[in-house]
Amino acid sequence: MITQFRSWAETLADCSPAFIEYIEQKLNRVERQIEGLLLRESPFIREAGLYIMKAGGKRLRPLLLIVSARLGDYPGDDDVLFGVVVEYIHTATLVHDDIIDNAQERRGQLSVHRRWSGPVAVLLGDYFYTKAMALALDYGHLKILRILSNITLQTLQGEIAEQVQDGNLWITEPQIMDIIYRKTACLFSGCCQIAAILAGLPPGLEASLAEFGRYLGIAFQIVDDMLDYSADPHRLGKPVLHDLLEGKVTLPLYYLLRQAAPDETAPVRAAFQRRDPSLLDTQALQRLMDKYRILPQVQRVAETYARQALTVLQSFPRGEARQLLEGLIRFIIRRPS
Amino acid sequence: MITQFRSWAETLADCSPAFIEYIEQKLNRVERQIEGLLLRESPFIREAGLYIMKAGGKRLRPLLLIVSARLGDYPGDDDVLFGVVVEYIHTATLVHDDIIDNAQERRGQLSVHRRWSGPVAVLLGDYFYTKAMALALDYGHLKILRILSNITLQTLQGEIAEQVQDGNLWITEPQIMDIIYRKTACLFSGCCQIAAILAGLPPGLEASLAEFGRYLGIAFQIVDDMLDYSADPHRLGKPVLHDLLEGKVTLPLYYLLRQAAPDETAPVRAAFQRRDPSLLDTQALQRLMDKYRILPQVQRVAETYARQALTVLQSFPRGEARQLLEGLIRFIIRRPS
Repeated sequence: MITQFRSWAETLADCSPAFIEYIEQKLNRVERQIEGLLLRESPFIREAGLYIMKAGGKRLRPLLLIVSARLGDYPGDDDVLFGVVVEYIHTATLVHDDIIDNAQERRGQLSVHRRWSGPVAVLLGDYFYTKAMALALDYGHLKILRILSNITLQTLQGEIAEQVQDGNLWITEPQIMDIIYRKTACLFSGCCQIAAILAGLPPGLEASLAEFGRYLGIAFQIVDDMLDYSADPHRLGKPVLHDLLEGKVTLPLYYLLRQAAPDETAPVRAAFQRRDPSLLDTQALQRLMDKYRILPQVQRVAETYARQALTVLQSFPRGEARQLLEGLIRFIIRRPS
Repeated sequence: MITQFRSWAETLADCSPAFIEYIEQKLNRVERQIEGLLLRESPFIREAGLYIMKAGGKRLRPLLLIVSARLGDYPGDDDVLFGVVVEYIHTATLVHDDIIDNAQERRGQLSVHRRWSGPVAVLLGDYFYTKAMALALDYGHLKILRILSNITLQTLQGEIAEQVQDGNLWITEPQIMDIIYRKTACLFSGCCQIAAILAGLPPGLEASLAEFGRYLGIAFQIVDDMLDYSADPHRLGKPVLHDLLEGKVTLPLYYLLRQAAPDETAPVRAAFQRRDPSLLDTQALQRLMDKYRILPQVQRVAETYARQALTVLQSFPRGEARQLLEGLIRFIIRRPS
């Protein structure tokens, strides 16, 4: 994964080897700290925790926090600790999410509830949530603690909203965007805000950095939702059309349902409502998506948010940290299908 | 439930009507605060949250916190807030526990995961854990926050240890006692310690109050484990022999397996290992338990802890709060079978 960071950083941002080395070392320390924490746990948490943590994952949230802290000229080391904290929160969400969606795979291996059981996954998710707060409590900064607590509440409310909208073909665009904000962008935004607080930035820049994270997170999730309609399952490590068959309307399906004629979308709606893959002609769906140019439209929405993220970054001085964040925006927008 | 408090308080403790009224009003405010919080939530959390919260429950942990604060002459009102916080943590544990044990009922009604679904129960438990910390963060006392975080970690580690020992007939007594401490007594102890901190007690008395809570919690859980072997299912609202058929060895089964002859316990072991109620002759098990006087032995262990709790209370001045806590010990030890 760390190699993955280096490869995209070298391609998409014009940073010095020394700067890339600096970020890479921070990310390595996040990894070592996660491993060290898990190795000190009881055998059960250790095994299941290392299983999920060692499977990869982009470590996008720790990276975002670390580079944002650097943007604020933060000289210290607590960005590594909070990198661990946000990765723990993210992991807790994934583990519980996989139970909720009954996902079979995660990061190219069996999901925790499939590899072990539902009970193990419930407890492992609880453990990551609780340990994240315990780590942050050791540090003891109340404002950061409140941000982390709010992130978790927002994420849960996003998950719950998604459950409520389960199977609802008539969800509105604002409702979809609200779920995207709560489920994903709030944590991105929190990573940036925590970095700003660590760096001691003035309130205006703290708010700007949080806003940057929010736009970036929204762009990220929109692209993620697109990949479910376009990705090669081998590269992404998860089945395509998963959202559709789980009864979740994301932007691609939303646009298709509103732009195509009802008789064109009838088979898709049937597969959605019965959650039956056998009712779904993948190639016909592909043709329909192409006919109405759905994915390019969705891509444009993601790019709008990416541009807003870029604009907010202009408030910060030019430099390698800003270049890397700009590269991160491009990376998120151009993720391989 | 509040009526339940009054009835046992009048029977088991010699407190003035004014004192009982004082505690009852605090408990009523815990109820109103819980209801107020849930009514402000989105419809989904509101409905499921009120369902589980309105089903009753003894509110033993808020009561313990409130009476302990009174023992320290605490004049304020934040005991109500922390009463809500500890009841939230307890409820989160119950909701996730019911998924783990696949329990059909809780407090005489369908458990959340049966009434709705596993996903709903996962998210509702997450919500109660997270909201508990968010409420405590509003108050912002770092030491109390760390106690709460530690309670949750200990509880999870207790649950995890229980999963690890699942189906293990050869669990040791220290392992059983460790699970009892983590799963139950740690929260009891934390309720008392938080009360001591609110009351501003000196470190020695804070430690004593925490120790009292620990002994009380251990006694409570031992009696709870006994009730699974002796209770009338209609009064307790949960099926008897549930632990045995879930592959959990608690003290009654532990003593039976070590005291009865192997051929006597063979059918019990078979039912335990296959988790098959049809292999279990309840009346034969009852006779075997009677023959070796298992439940009176377990009751004596619980009474040992109850006596230790009583002894620790001697460090505190006589008064109605101490009398009520002494009554609470008796109540816990004599819970109806």
